[in-house]
Amino acid sequence: MPFVRICVTGDEERPTSEQKKELIAGVTKLVGDVLGKNTSNMVVIIDEIPMENYGIGGKTVRERRKEKQS
Amino acid sequence: MPFVRICVTGDEERPTSEQKKELIAGVTKLVGDVLGKNTSNMVVIIDEIPMENYGIGGKTVRERRKEKQS
Amino acid sequence: MPFVRICVTGDEERPTSEQKKELIAGVTKLVGDVLGKNTSNMVVIIDEIPMENYGIGGKTVRERRKEKQS
Amino acid sequence: MPFVRICVTGDEERPTSEQKKELIAGVTKLVGDVLGKNTSNMVVIIDEIPMENYGIGGKTVRERRKEKQS
Amino acid sequence: MPFVRICVTGDEERPTSEQKKELIAGVTKLVGDVLGKNTSNMVVIIDEIPMENYGIGGKTVRERRKEKQS
Amino acid sequence: MPFVRICVTGDEERPTSEQKKELIAGVTKLVGDVLGKNTSNMVVIIDEIPMENYGIGGKTVRERRKEKQS
Repeated sequence: MPFVRICVTGDEERPTSEQKKELIAGVTKLVGDVLGKNTSNMVVIIDEIPMENYGIGGKTVRERRKEKQS
Repeated sequence: MPFVRICVTGDEERPTSEQKKELIAGVTKLVGDVLGKNTSNMVVIIDEIPMENYGIGGKTVRERRKEKQS
Repeated sequence: MPFVRICVTGDEERPTSEQKKELIAGVTKLVGDVLGKNTSNMVVIIDEIPMENYGIGGKTVRERRKEKQS
Repeated sequence: MPFVRICVTGDEERPTSEQKKELIAGVTKLVGDVLGKNTSNMVVIIDEIPMENYGIGGKTVRERRKEKQS
Repeated sequence: MPFVRICVTGDEERPTSEQKKELIAGVTKLVGDVLGKNTSNMVVIIDEIPMENYGIGGKTVRERRKEKQS
Repeated sequence: MPFVRICVTGDEERPTSEQKKELIAGVTKLVGDVLGKNTSNMVVIIDEIPMENYGIGGKTVRERRKEKQS
């Protein structure tokens, strides 16, 4: 019974309800298929991280998006 | 000084303030008792995961609750 | 650039090198496809948890496997 | 179906198999009791962190233990 | 490409946007310097934990702050 | 009392004991300075992830290192 945790950016980049369903169904099936495990109780958690709390290369995603626009 | 992180479903299923206090006090005491450790600085964090971000068996908890009702 | 962490049981149940490659390639592609994100820097980490450190329903996986056999 | 992850120091301070069973059984029961949740699939994971990888107050636990002895 | 996750108390104690930028820039630089790693894709995530979800020594930070004031 | 967890690649890329001390001392000081928090009980954990369990861009770090060499 594997356990999966997925961090994505939130705010205006947050996944839609439909995308969350696809992520959870897809990752569960994939992990079950690869490992040959029963998935009936597999847990997948999606963490939505606010864009100013998510840093890449030393800058927040919020800053990076702004720079890209300007 | 162990560290504990507890993921629970949030939204309408989120624990009450009273339940959070009980969880934190109870888990701290239990871990301290079992391991014979000083608990004065033990950290316990509760993560409330929105029901559509928490997947079990390939479906979000939000979907599972709806199916149960219908 | 999402980040994914996958906990699986280790010891004699640990994934093979081939399964790890499939997991990492598959999850990366799936998350990229669903969210429409560039995956060139997406991180996927696999945690192998010893069977006596992984509890399900209040028992370690080590105990559960033994009971099943007997 | 809550999910719990417990970090403890490993190496010579690692919990015994018996302590791990007690931790997993105890935390599962406690969380189930406080939240009124079915625990049959609750997952509890214990992470054993090597003493030189676990820092408290800016020093590794390995260093702290040495200082205490001297 | 290391990955860092930082838990801090949220609510009225949450870091300002400026502090988040400093945390992300500072931790990224420090980890890169110490390990001699390229940081252009290093991820740092800040988790803001509500004060009643963050327990220290068996009490929520919310309770501890109240006791201090009285 | 913030809590920090750092994932780095292990195996032949694992940090030396000296680097771990520097990481733990440095991150603790930096987080304390930026947030103006007492650091005497701040916890920093370093997770060493085996190179075949750490995926970047859909490939394990083990594979990436091999490709670079050839």
